[in-house]
Amino acid sequence: MRTQVAEHHPDLHAVIEHLVFSGGKRVRPAVTLLTGKMLGADPDRLVILAAAIEMLHTATLVHDDLIDGSMLRRGIPTVNAQWSPAATVLAGDYIFARAAEMAARTNSVALMQSFAETLATIVNGEITQMFSSRGVASREDYYRRIYAKTASLFMLATKAAAMISQCDEQVVETIRKFGYEIGMAYQIVDDILDFTGDQEEVGKPVASDLLSGLVTLPAIYYMESHPDDQDMEAVLRGEYNNNGRMMRLVKAIRSSGAIKQALDEARRYVERGLEHLEHMPAGVERQALVELSSYIVDRQV
Amino acid sequence: MRTQVAEHHPDLHAVIEHLVFSGGKRVRPAVTLLTGKMLGADPDRLVILAAAIEMLHTATLVHDDLIDGSMLRRGIPTVNAQWSPAATVLAGDYIFARAAEMAARTNSVALMQSFAETLATIVNGEITQMFSSRGVASREDYYRRIYAKTASLFMLATKAAAMISQCDEQVVETIRKFGYEIGMAYQIVDDILDFTGDQEEVGKPVASDLLSGLVTLPAIYYMESHPDDQDMEAVLRGEYNNNGRMMRLVKAIRSSGAIKQALDEARRYVERGLEHLEHMPAGVERQALVELSSYIVDRQV
Repeated sequence: MRTQVAEHHPDLHAVIEHLVFSGGKRVRPAVTLLTGKMLGADPDRLVILAAAIEMLHTATLVHDDLIDGSMLRRGIPTVNAQWSPAATVLAGDYIFARAAEMAARTNSVALMQSFAETLATIVNGEITQMFSSRGVASREDYYRRIYAKTASLFMLATKAAAMISQCDEQVVETIRKFGYEIGMAYQIVDDILDFTGDQEEVGKPVASDLLSGLVTLPAIYYMESHPDDQDMEAVLRGEYNNNGRMMRLVKAIRSSGAIKQALDEARRYVERGLEHLEHMPAGVERQALVELSSYIVDRQV
Repeated sequence: MRTQVAEHHPDLHAVIEHLVFSGGKRVRPAVTLLTGKMLGADPDRLVILAAAIEMLHTATLVHDDLIDGSMLRRGIPTVNAQWSPAATVLAGDYIFARAAEMAARTNSVALMQSFAETLATIVNGEITQMFSSRGVASREDYYRRIYAKTASLFMLATKAAAMISQCDEQVVETIRKFGYEIGMAYQIVDDILDFTGDQEEVGKPVASDLLSGLVTLPAIYYMESHPDDQDMEAVLRGEYNNNGRMMRLVKAIRSSGAIKQALDEARRYVERGLEHLEHMPAGVERQALVELSSYIVDRQV
């Protein structure tokens, strides 16, 4: 990723260095590399693909943080916290361009097409979310949203890794499903951590989704079991200036069964994913993917 | 272009309809189609390529207008004049994704790579411009900027059309140079029209570049022949609130030799372009490209 920007504007170089150093869990490139290795992909193309996937993810985060006005990501300042909105738009565009360039270097037209389709899916999901009414919580909408936001890219990671391997259509299809299931689980757990996580470790304010009117799975479960909760109603109406009310609601959700219900849901996704994985070639990579799947639901950050 | 968005969010559909209906001269797809037809490209792939190029162009305009705060483009409201900044960022991203998808459908990895490289060049050019000091005018910077902003995409249009045709490397290289030359001419003329154009017809304020501190070729020529012009110095320092001063400066540039000098420069680019074109297969398409080249310098809008 880092070698991709050497020849361009020094400030761009700086911002990409910043993003690369900012770390993150690198789950998507890990899934890509393990899947490709498991299926016998050419190592050079595989590394480029993994970097392209992480770059695509990074580009969407840069624009997301700008749109949400987020000042912190992974506990460190976002691009928009340091650059003007205009420069942040362009920084994101540039990273998109570089991601596309790397994807093209994998030398597969079909892969490029999936790559572009996934970007369209992610962006369409964000636009849909933006035009949705505040505080509306349908489980169907929720699943559709987290598919677009997260599972689609996990699906791309596994599918694309298989596409550059020597394997048949059936394998591509099966591993793609694995990617979908663990991607859905990943986002559900992210949404749980938004409630339960330590603010320092998660690197953003607690219940940031609810603060912005976004109803995620723990809140949906809570609302189902507490249909008349006054705090929830107030928060969903946008009356979250009353910080005491918000704290009380977060506490109520945390100590309700909603967190466990959501976590159980995530575990079911992972279980389905692992069933698909069983059809893949056994070996250290498959075992690592099993462990990565457990990590997805067990992580604390 | 229009069929590309049917399945996604209705507001996205609306914004793309808006952009498609907003017209524009469609010079880039015209260049693409004529070049490909001249060189025997497969018609289906060629049409997709032309649409992909115009989509890429449109996506960059959507983000540009947002960054510049432009409210009008081609005389009609920009996306950001109607949507929030956040939604405009995403609308641009979505159009990028669709452009990439279409480019992938041309089924050429090399083309995809050029496509992504061109996007990186365009965005890098904008970032460089953004981080440049206000009012600094070097001819070298100017040419570098208009290459990134405009000529690179004309170059892509011609080169990519040749890449999906049955022609050898030499032809690709020659037509690419033609694209470069007419692209440079196109932007110089655009910059001239910013001074000489009718505000109504051009669809944006007169001397909008200078107002934003951007020094283009007519202003560079004017400064060379009027090194001590007080109005120019004031405007470059950002003192353009004095509207009388700005009007006087625009009038002075218009009636100086600077406009003709810039136009002569554009004509020289076109002449060099036409020399490359002479090596291409004769026929109606080549003739149309000759006429399109004349139009580029003779147009009034």
